[in-house]
Amino acid sequence: MDTLDLASWIVGFVDGEGCFQVSFTHREKLQTNIEVRASFSVSQNSRSKSSLLKIEEFFGCGSLRYSQKDDTFIYEVRNLDDLYTKILPFFRSYGLLTYKKKDFDSWATIVFKIKQGHHLNKTGLKEIIENAYTMNSKGFGRKYTKDDLLKFLES
Amino acid sequence: MDTLDLASWIVGFVDGEGCFQVSFTHREKLQTNIEVRASFSVSQNSRSKSSLLKIEEFFGCGSLRYSQKDDTFIYEVRNLDDLYTKILPFFRSYGLLTYKKKDFDSWATIVFKIKQGHHLNKTGLKEIIENAYTMNSKGFGRKYTKDDLLKFLES
Repeated sequence: MDTLDLASWIVGFVDGEGCFQVSFTHREKLQTNIEVRASFSVSQNSRSKSSLLKIEEFFGCGSLRYSQKDDTFIYEVRNLDDLYTKILPFFRSYGLLTYKKKDFDSWATIVFKIKQGHHLNKTGLKEIIENAYTMNSKGFGRKYTKDDLLKFLES
Repeated sequence: MDTLDLASWIVGFVDGEGCFQVSFTHREKLQTNIEVRASFSVSQNSRSKSSLLKIEEFFGCGSLRYSQKDDTFIYEVRNLDDLYTKILPFFRSYGLLTYKKKDFDSWATIVFKIKQGHHLNKTGLKEIIENAYTMNSKGFGRKYTKDDLLKFLES
């Protein structure tokens, strides 16, 4: 029996099934008018819940939630510190092998900028919007077009 | 930079994206009336072709083909000896971590039986059909229902 290296298994699984996301929400109460949130998630049919629990245990952060609509579990990390100190360094260190690496690189740039507080001013947030729109459309909820977001920013 | 273990990466990637398949075709010229074929495949958008080439190189068998319809590459192993001596022992040794392991176990039983020639007589082939119908529907092209196949067998 060969021994599976769990870290490398996770990289492979995430190359297939993982999602590095950035979402934007219109919030007039904020100075920038836009809230930005980064997250990392992996979804699986409920029959494969145990594989997501392994990932949760490995990273020691995030949580699972159930979606009754399609009988799936979603492992999700939304806490910025966890994304910055656990998720980002892990995938930067191991390196994804598919085209998803390009999405990860844009996502990592955005997480770094949010951590530095760049999203709190309009110039910084505009750059973050530009970064996000280099990502695959699955990478962020396209509730708004890029033009919508830039208009919110300037309004 | 941590070192990725390619074998473990492949297990993770296949847990997400791989397909262990068994297909049946009605062939009246055969004594059993049915041809059975096993295969292993992984598909990716053309942008991630390089990840499939890594898998092809790792296993030293199979080939890539392009599907223009959805702009994907499919890495596929159809040669029975390659399935039996390379693919089956690899995944048996490392072990998949998702529910796909159950499909793999049924598939491995079928590959073993085909290798032993059980598919050449009606009793053996009937058992193989029963095994195949324990698999996820993605695991084999459901051109026919199980009843269709059993009727071909008895006709």
